[in-house]
Amino acid sequence: MEITTSSPGAEAGATAALLSVVLDRAGREPLGRQLYLRVRDLILLGRLAGGARLPSSRRLADDLGVSRTVTLAAYDQLTVEGYLEAQRGSGHYVKALKRQAPGPPRPAEHPRGAAPAPVEVLLAAPRGRPFDSDAPASDLFPTRLWARMMARGWRREGLAAAGLGDWAGLASLRGAIAGYLRGLQGIDCAADQVVITAGNADALQLITRGLGGAGAQIWVEDPGHVGARQTLRREGLKVVPVPVDAEGLDVAAGRRLAPRARFALVTPARQFPTGAPLSLPRRVALIDWAHETDAVVIADDYDSELRFAGRPVAALSSLDRRGVVLSIGSFSRVTFPGLRLGYIVGSAALIAPLVQARAREGSPVATGAQPALAEFIGGGGLAKHLRGLRRRMGQRRDALADALRARLGEAVTVEPQEVGQHLVVTLGPGLAGRASDVEIAALATARGLSLDPLSNHAAALPGRQGFLLGYAGWDEAVLLAGVEALAKVLAQVEAQRPRCESPR
Amino acid sequence: MEITTSSPGAEAGATAALLSVVLDRAGREPLGRQLYLRVRDLILLGRLAGGARLPSSRRLADDLGVSRTVTLAAYDQLTVEGYLEAQRGSGHYVKALKRQAPGPPRPAEHPRGAAPAPVEVLLAAPRGRPFDSDAPASDLFPTRLWARMMARGWRREGLAAAGLGDWAGLASLRGAIAGYLRGLQGIDCAADQVVITAGNADALQLITRGLGGAGAQIWVEDPGHVGARQTLRREGLKVVPVPVDAEGLDVAAGRRLAPRARFALVTPARQFPTGAPLSLPRRVALIDWAHETDAVVIADDYDSELRFAGRPVAALSSLDRRGVVLSIGSFSRVTFPGLRLGYIVGSAALIAPLVQARAREGSPVATGAQPALAEFIGGGGLAKHLRGLRRRMGQRRDALADALRARLGEAVTVEPQEVGQHLVVTLGPGLAGRASDVEIAALATARGLSLDPLSNHAAALPGRQGFLLGYAGWDEAVLLAGVEALAKVLAQVEAQRPRCESPR
Repeated sequence: MEITTSSPGAEAGATAALLSVVLDRAGREPLGRQLYLRVRDLILLGRLAGGARLPSSRRLADDLGVSRTVTLAAYDQLTVEGYLEAQRGSGHYVKALKRQAPGPPRPAEHPRGAAPAPVEVLLAAPRGRPFDSDAPASDLFPTRLWARMMARGWRREGLAAAGLGDWAGLASLRGAIAGYLRGLQGIDCAADQVVITAGNADALQLITRGLGGAGAQIWVEDPGHVGARQTLRREGLKVVPVPVDAEGLDVAAGRRLAPRARFALVTPARQFPTGAPLSLPRRVALIDWAHETDAVVIADDYDSELRFAGRPVAALSSLDRRGVVLSIGSFSRVTFPGLRLGYIVGSAALIAPLVQARAREGSPVATGAQPALAEFIGGGGLAKHLRGLRRRMGQRRDALADALRARLGEAVTVEPQEVGQHLVVTLGPGLAGRASDVEIAALATARGLSLDPLSNHAAALPGRQGFLLGYAGWDEAVLLAGVEALAKVLAQVEAQRPRCESPR
Repeated sequence: MEITTSSPGAEAGATAALLSVVLDRAGREPLGRQLYLRVRDLILLGRLAGGARLPSSRRLADDLGVSRTVTLAAYDQLTVEGYLEAQRGSGHYVKALKRQAPGPPRPAEHPRGAAPAPVEVLLAAPRGRPFDSDAPASDLFPTRLWARMMARGWRREGLAAAGLGDWAGLASLRGAIAGYLRGLQGIDCAADQVVITAGNADALQLITRGLGGAGAQIWVEDPGHVGARQTLRREGLKVVPVPVDAEGLDVAAGRRLAPRARFALVTPARQFPTGAPLSLPRRVALIDWAHETDAVVIADDYDSELRFAGRPVAALSSLDRRGVVLSIGSFSRVTFPGLRLGYIVGSAALIAPLVQARAREGSPVATGAQPALAEFIGGGGLAKHLRGLRRRMGQRRDALADALRARLGEAVTVEPQEVGQHLVVTLGPGLAGRASDVEIAALATARGLSLDPLSNHAAALPGRQGFLLGYAGWDEAVLLAGVEALAKVLAQVEAQRPRCESPR
């Protein structure tokens, strides 16, 4: 990503473009968000060229007749998302959005074509042990409020929920979700673009069946979600692991490995498990590829509701002008694991065959909790719950991170995470020569812990050595006790003689 | 089935055996049911031999010191279930339970081994059209009571429903279902033998995955349930269609076609779609085969809650002394289609690996409606609902059957059905030469009807020509209008010239 200092003429052009922005002062959307959206469109449409220097936030505020808070908010968000780059003392520049061309072949660090199915070690860990990264903070879920929502929702919906209804899901819930997605992720969608799912595995199944995907190739992130790969293989897709780096999925590598893949599955907000957000150039490259080849991009912004700092990054679909992105998500991780309700949202052309597939299969998503979830989202209960969850989860995260650093010292490195329900730690050199993360996880199981080894998430490339440590499901006392137990396990490993060859 | 007139000595032996019966007059179980169970055990244990004549109901009542209502109820139930045969004027005889030996090979009316996957025409019919046989009577479901159950259940369960819980399902629901099955179907089970499912497709999936069934053979009934065959094939099982006759699944044919099959899937109470209950000799033969070969029998007594006449037939599992039967069922058909809750019940040895498989998959059954269903079953709401449902469904069934006979006359034959939510009609000769049931169903779709062609349910054998006509989801006025529309369709077909060759 190169930044060119812009000429005075370019800045004048940028200012002129910005002055074309019309803000709706009577609208419901905050002015800062309106400005952010308009500037983003100018960049994406090429009317603000890469390298252009923007007027200062103060000057733009004067020009537009808004407060400086408005322009600062917009610039900050655009910078977080990679549209702008802030240069200390010299202002904001538009980043050069080079269309990512397929690069020259690199050394074969990755097998060509679909990788053979790796051996995926699945620990059938008992639920509820610290640091199970799948355990959500269901102890914080307001069950008595939920009981009221259940009664209210069923009284209101009655036969709509009990009756034959709509294969796409309860209409009131689809409307509530559309509103939620417009607000939280800036996904511009209507209720009839939403299909209710029983969670992400169900979403992947429905997309495969609805779009006739069996036998086709799908890019998946490597490392990435083990369960998703299993679901996709079971549905008959050819899984093509594509390497991930600090900018997320390597689109150029994907183009080399499987240029005509039918699908790509990505976690743009926060790559699972590395935590890297998909960079803006990569987002553009991914969408460009999908437009060129008629591929469908499945985007899972998991845990993006649980951001502890900064504003949520706009959904991948906001770059998509041709309707090739299907966004999927689940409400189970922010409510309780047995909720099993989620969504697919996308263009009408992609959504219609999914609803037909559901009808063909003849098995609707369970409607029992749909009226309550509609009430919970629509009545503001979820937003309030998320606020409390962010606060308490932030406390849990901080308690865990502090304890890990204080108690484990050099044994592991705690990676920074601004979002979500787990920390990523990597093994320090003292451990790496003595035992693999999978072996350490096995030792930890005997001490009542549930560690998710990082290397298990690797598909074709060798994985990093470390763990996902979930903190959502336990209060601080349990987390500290867990760190104590983990310290004992690691001390036991460090006392072993180093191996001649280090584990992969 | 041969009945030998018993000698006076045999009758004395039978009387002696019957006098050994001890009834618990203080017990909760009605005396008639106790007597039925004891006599059934005597027959199954061989202490009442085939052909033995039983004392008259009056004499046995005197001998046991109970009212004649008690002995009559027991005899009637045993006769319905095929343990006894009533001979007019001469009393009740024990039927000879010949162990069914593999017979001589019959002419090849059926291909050997697993049949190739047939073309299965699936009409993606809109829901809610008369006579959709999958549409339940959800208009009769008490949604306001259900709203209260939802609130009460969630207040009571709270974190048990929201939390990490048990992979087998909510404990209170498992207990309620065990009680329900003990009462309704005489399945002797405890709560920890019950696994909650998301319905029958989920049950088949879980059984396949939990018992490592991929690649194994499974007997299925031919004709039988299309959706079940699809689920089983998708899970990697080799589906072996086994012919069905008036006694249900032909066990001897199954032994010839796939003697070492790992599973058999049967609908014992009422074969789907023919309606024939699995006869007692066939039940015994099936269980014998499973015991011999270590096969697992999956029994689906669908719709057995909706019996309009007679008592429910005892579940297949009541013959199973070695724990080879898994009984599956769903509550969706007697509540509302979106409930998506059902069960698997069986021996601890078979249930444990299923729970482990659920944990391995990491996807619990949705818990949202589980607390409410536990309240609904445990508090007597379901039993009351079933009573109302039987009455109203009986009215709908009678209205439909009368209208079909009155309006369609010879065009179709309405088969007698004492259970369930649909009628079976077969095409009369006037239609059979002119169009197939699939073609007639296509014509009917244009008139707003949803007909389920009987021949679609055939797997390898040619299917009969006719329809399943669901009546559950509509009141009498809609059903009569549907019959009018159907009459027009059939008149249109009858007006066509007969074909040179009749459809298969």
